[in-house]
Order: sequence, then C-alpha cells, then structure tokens
Amino acid sequence: MESTDAPGTTRNPGDVADVIVIGAGVIGLGIAWTAARSGRRVVVVDPAPGTGASFAAAGMLAAVSEYHYQEEALLGLMLDSARRWPEFAAAAGPDCGYLATPTLCLAADAADRQAFADLRAAQEAHGLAVQPLTVREARKAEPLLAPGIAGAFTIEADHQVDPRRLVAALLGRLGDDALVPARAASLAWDGGRVAGVVLEDGQELRAAETVVANGLGARDLGGLPVALPLRPVYGDILRLRVPEALRPLVTATVRGLVRGRPVYVVPREDGTVVIGATQREDGSGAVSAGGVYELLRDAQALVPAVAELELTETTARARPGTPDNAPLLGRVGNVPGLIVATGFFRHGVLLTPAAAEVCRQLLEGRTDPQWDSFRPDRFASQPARIPAVSAAERGGS
Amino acid sequence: MESTDAPGTTRNPGDVADVIVIGAGVIGLGIAWTAARSGRRVVVVDPAPGTGASFAAAGMLAAVSEYHYQEEALLGLMLDSARRWPEFAAAAGPDCGYLATPTLCLAADAADRQAFADLRAAQEAHGLAVQPLTVREARKAEPLLAPGIAGAFTIEADHQVDPRRLVAALLGRLGDDALVPARAASLAWDGGRVAGVVLEDGQELRAAETVVANGLGARDLGGLPVALPLRPVYGDILRLRVPEALRPLVTATVRGLVRGRPVYVVPREDGTVVIGATQREDGSGAVSAGGVYELLRDAQALVPAVAELELTETTARARPGTPDNAPLLGRVGNVPGLIVATGFFRHGVLLTPAAAEVCRQLLEGRTDPQWDSFRPDRFASQPARIPAVSAAERGGS
Repeated sequence: MESTDAPGTTRNPGDVADVIVIGAGVIGLGIAWTAARSGRRVVVVDPAPGTGASFAAAGMLAAVSEYHYQEEALLGLMLDSARRWPEFAAAAGPDCGYLATPTLCLAADAADRQAFADLRAAQEAHGLAVQPLTVREARKAEPLLAPGIAGAFTIEADHQVDPRRLVAALLGRLGDDALVPARAASLAWDGGRVAGVVLEDGQELRAAETVVANGLGARDLGGLPVALPLRPVYGDILRLRVPEALRPLVTATVRGLVRGRPVYVVPREDGTVVIGATQREDGSGAVSAGGVYELLRDAQALVPAVAELELTETTARARPGTPDNAPLLGRVGNVPGLIVATGFFRHGVLLTPAAAEVCRQLLEGRTDPQWDSFRPDRFASQPARIPAVSAAERGGS
Repeated sequence: MESTDAPGTTRNPGDVADVIVIGAGVIGLGIAWTAARSGRRVVVVDPAPGTGASFAAAGMLAAVSEYHYQEEALLGLMLDSARRWPEFAAAAGPDCGYLATPTLCLAADAADRQAFADLRAAQEAHGLAVQPLTVREARKAEPLLAPGIAGAFTIEADHQVDPRRLVAALLGRLGDDALVPARAASLAWDGGRVAGVVLEDGQELRAAETVVANGLGARDLGGLPVALPLRPVYGDILRLRVPEALRPLVTATVRGLVRGRPVYVVPREDGTVVIGATQREDGSGAVSAGGVYELLRDAQALVPAVAELELTETTARARPGTPDNAPLLGRVGNVPGLIVATGFFRHGVLLTPAAAEVCRQLLEGRTDPQWDSFRPDRFASQPARIPAVSAAERGGS
C-alpha cells in the first residue's frame, strides 16, 4: 500500500511506515486495514495474530442485545459501529463470514421473561427495535426450541461475523509485508513524542503514528505515558458440529437467559455452532470444567438437541475489561504520535469498524467530541507524561 | 532381542521375526513385550501406536468393581490379570504410572446404594473384598466428597495404571527396531498356515506366528479365517487439571453411581484427573456434547469441586465390543501361525498381562482349557477356513 499524500501524515526519515499498529486481533487489524485503505503505509506488530480474545469470540454484532442499563455512551459507539458493519464487511471481503442472521432472545422461565421485557422497555426508549413473539411463533421459526421456554423476542438488527475468518481476511488484505511477527516490548520515544516501538529483540521500528491495539497485552507494554486500567475477564466458549440430520439446529442467533444466566448459540454457515460464554474473574486462563458444564446445561435448556452435537473445541481467553466496561480509545492527553485502542471487553468484534473509523479520523488530525468519554486517560490520577523508562530507551536507540 | 532357542519357535528362511503383532495398543504391546522377554524376536505393526482405545482409556485395574452379574468366565480372566499386574508393571518399568490407588464406590442416592449393596453380595460370593463405609468415614478419607452422598464402599484391590505412559514405556522397552509404522492390510497365507502380514503398500512380512491385536482395526484386516463379531462402543472421556489449592482432589479412584449412571474420577500423580466414561452405540466417533455434559454433571454430584478444575482434554474413542462382552482370545480352530487377541471392550488395560500370558503359552504350544470360553471363533456359524482372498494374495506375493 503506497501513498505519499494521505492527509495528516508526517513522514520522517527512517520510518518503516506511516502507522505502526501493535496487535493483530480484530481491533488492530481493522484499524490497520482502514488506515491502509485511506492511503497510509501500515505495519502490524504481533507475534501470533488472531490468537487472543479474537480467537475465542463468537462474533455477535449485537448492539441492541448487548445494551446494558446506563451505558448510553457505549450504546452510541455500538450503534455507530453496527451501521458501519455492512460496508466494513464488504471491504474485508466475502471470506469474513458476515451474515445478517437475526437474533432471537429466549427466556427460560417467567423471571427471565420479565428481565427481557424490562430491558426491552429501556431498549425501545433508545429507539431499538425488539419484537415480542409468542412461544408458538418462535417454535414455528425454530422447531428445535425447547417446548417449555417462557418467552421470546426478535432483534432483526443484531447480526454476526466469524472473527477467525475476519482475522484471516484482513491479514490477507494487508499482505504479508505488513506483518511484523514479533512482540512489541515498549513504545519508542523521541523527545516528547512517541516515535514507534521497540521490539523484544531490541530492534526499533519507527513511524509517525503508533496505535496500541493489543488488548490485554497493553498491560505489558513499556513506555506508556499513562496507566491503562485493564483487567482480564476470562470466558469459556465452545465450538460444536451439528450432525447432518439436525441441520439447521437454529437459523437465528439464540441468546437466552436461563434462570438469570446468559447463554448464546450462534449458527455458522458451515453447520457448526458457537456456544458461549462464561465471565470469570478467577485469574485462570484455562478452560473451566464448571463453565463448560453450565454452558452445555443452559444451552440444552433452550435447545435440547445441543446434547446431540459434537463438541469439537473448548477454548478460554481473557477479554480486556475496564472499570466502566467501555473501551480506552483515543489520544492520550496531548502526546503526539500515540493512539490507544484497547479495553473493548465483550464488544471488540462489534466495535471494530467504529474503532477503525475513530482512529482514521485521529490519524487525519480530526477529533470527534462525541467519543470523548472513551479517552484512554479518563481514569488516570495524573496527567499523561513521558515515562521514565523512555530516557533509557532513547539512550539505547 | 535376539534368541534362537525360545520354546515352540518354528523359524523359516525370510522371516522378519518369530512373532508379528498387529496393533500397538496396550494389548498388542503387552503381548509383544512379554514374547520378547521370553526370548522371541518380535515386530509390532501399527501406523500410529497408542492412538486407539488405549489413548482414551483411564487405566483402572478394576477386576472387582468391573464385575457384572453372570460374567464369571470374564471375572476369572480379570482376577488372573489383576494378580499379574504388579509383576507386569515392574517389568514395563517405573514410567508406566502403575499405582496401588484403592477404589471408592459412591452412591448418589438410596437406589444407587442398593445397587452397590446388591452387587456387593454377588462380589462377596466370589470372594471379592468390598468394604462398606459410613458417609462420615468416606468424607474423612476424602474431604471433598459431596455431603449428600448416600453410601460408600471401598475396594482395596482395584488399582490403576496410566495407559499413555504404559504405551510409551512398552514401546521404549521393545526398541525402535521392533516397530513397523505401517498398516497391516491382510494376513499373508502360505498353504494352510498364516505366514505373516501384507502391509498396505503390498510388502509382505513373514513370521512363524502372527497375533491379531489391533482392536476394532481387526474388522478391516483381510484374510482372517473366521469373521470376528466386533462392534464399536464409543465413549467420551475427560482429562482435567486440579488447581494447586484443591490438591489432592481425591486420593482414591472414585467410581460412582448417580441415579443409575456410572461415572468415575481417577486421580493421577501429576495433579490431573480422568473423568469417564460414556457408552454410546450411536456410530459417532466425535466427542458428544451431551456425553461431556453428563460426565461433568455426575462427577460434580459426587465431588462438587470438579467445577473448579481445568478441562484440558475431551476425547472420544471406540472400544472393541463383542456379543458377550468377553474378548476374542486364542487360536482360531486349528489354523497354524495365527493368534487373535481383540474384543477387550472396557477391559483392555486390566487384561493386558493376562492376554500377554495366554499368548505366551500359545506361542510355546501350550493351551489352558480354562480360557476356552474366549475362543475367537465361538460365535462363528462355520468352521475356520483359509479365506478365498488368500489365494490371490499368495499369487501376488
């Protein structure tokens, strides 16, 4: 991707690219691909692309059903991103597994139905379309639903993408030359600006702009001018194959509440389904036996034939959580050359086009005040500053 | 392993060994190693040693707790084998994971307790020691047992081995030269006797004696003089890691009945446990989601902390079942050069030393009438005969 006239670019001698993106999950790759499409030279630094939270993610594009009370700023970003998904998916290419599958919300008992009904009132107050169905209607559309479910709601606007296929598609679009398969150890500083990254082997890569988009990995990145309050929220997720005789298991993405516990079943085009996901803050990155048990139990409560599926994969990963469940997205104070895009928690896949667009605008020198509430330094007790370690790094480079 | 005076050996020019064993699961390797120890040259033919039923097996050496009503002949073989295990394990070496872990039988409810009590009466009629415990005694020995269990029995005589370590140990004892990593396509015939095997690539290996010990793979072996009534009985089995804070999860092998469903938890020295096993005849070699769910549910009913474990592996394999649940073990009619040792169903690991001993005696020209009931042709409607395919094979070799 060659260009010399992308807006806002400051190119310096010795730069390997206009933009270095640290992290090749969906967020980093979405930012990189969008920057590349707008004419910038981009390199992505990651020792193992797509193996973090993106590897686990089910890929629900669920702005409506992921709405939580009082998370209005996040809802705005989610809706903005949902609107961008069709165009983003088209640009990523047909291999990314984008499907306009609707979402069916199922309540296992009366209390679960009331929880959905209460949430629906809040959703509709924000103009989000949630359509109640009778159980008969739901079972007519999805014959394998459990007869005893207590309630059903359809959300036409919540779709899906396959994050693993998306990672592969974006890597392919960017090209092999754009990937630096190494771990970024630290930001590189040049005076008061971020000038690139120092790799684990000491090599320094320079660019006009550096985007920190490596999820929880940002905790281990040296040289940040502000502490990023990220914490791992672990999740277990299952992948299963539907035997031919049971296909399609469901045609819509099923999101259920089963005695207060959320569970979802996402059907893929290839006859597999994804069942997820637990949320654990127990510090264990291993697959939880209790988590797998609960997912299978609760999914069977909604779709009994889940018992007949082939369990092909159990995966656990950590999501990058933040104190307010919203991302850390934007510039840090007035530090030049640095953009942060992490902390996407449960919403990384949905928020990929919006994060990419926000970063595209920042790279062009523009800022949109509507996203101010996601400033990466909003939790910081002191203003952004050039970190002490950078002095040693400057000496060494 | 070189020797020329092993009893009963008929060596012919062109033989690659005295004995060819088809199949490198625990049964085949046990037979091979025992034959090698008695002075025979042995080769084992298997494209992927230890990847069949042996890969899944938990390795319980459970002659007492695996007793089923009216399976007296099988019980005799199981008890014979259990007695041989300490010496066999010593010969295989310390790496095979043999442990004299006792077995604790747990009943989830009153009906389960009654089932154990009824079985105990039959077990004691055969002189098998099964000791009832109070729930208090059981929980004193195993503090992580569920408080609500209905009954407990101890079987001191039922121990364990690690089948994967056993396979590795026996392969090491036999040496690299003893393994032919290829698939046996057919028995090779020479006149009225079995003269070895024809490999998939057409190569013929000859030996005085050929042992068919490839489990369900025997169904696909050409040139057998009699049909072997084997069928796949699939099973799901889990491997889990116990977090340090919960070790030991249990010290005994726990075998439970949970509302009539059997489940077991086998603790290993390395802080892992094996939880198994389903029995399915649904034709699917994939891991069953419903099977995994039931194993986790039932194991938690006995040991609630199972929910806290890390699920590291889910495996499904087929056991080689027979019409009477007993193995196909011995010579086939009066066909010289051929021994069959397959159909060990749930008991392959336990029965390995006995199968190896029976084969050792047969190789020496001896037969023990007490094992007559395991004759491989006991279900055959017609006597053993040189198969038609063998004529073409003789022409081709």
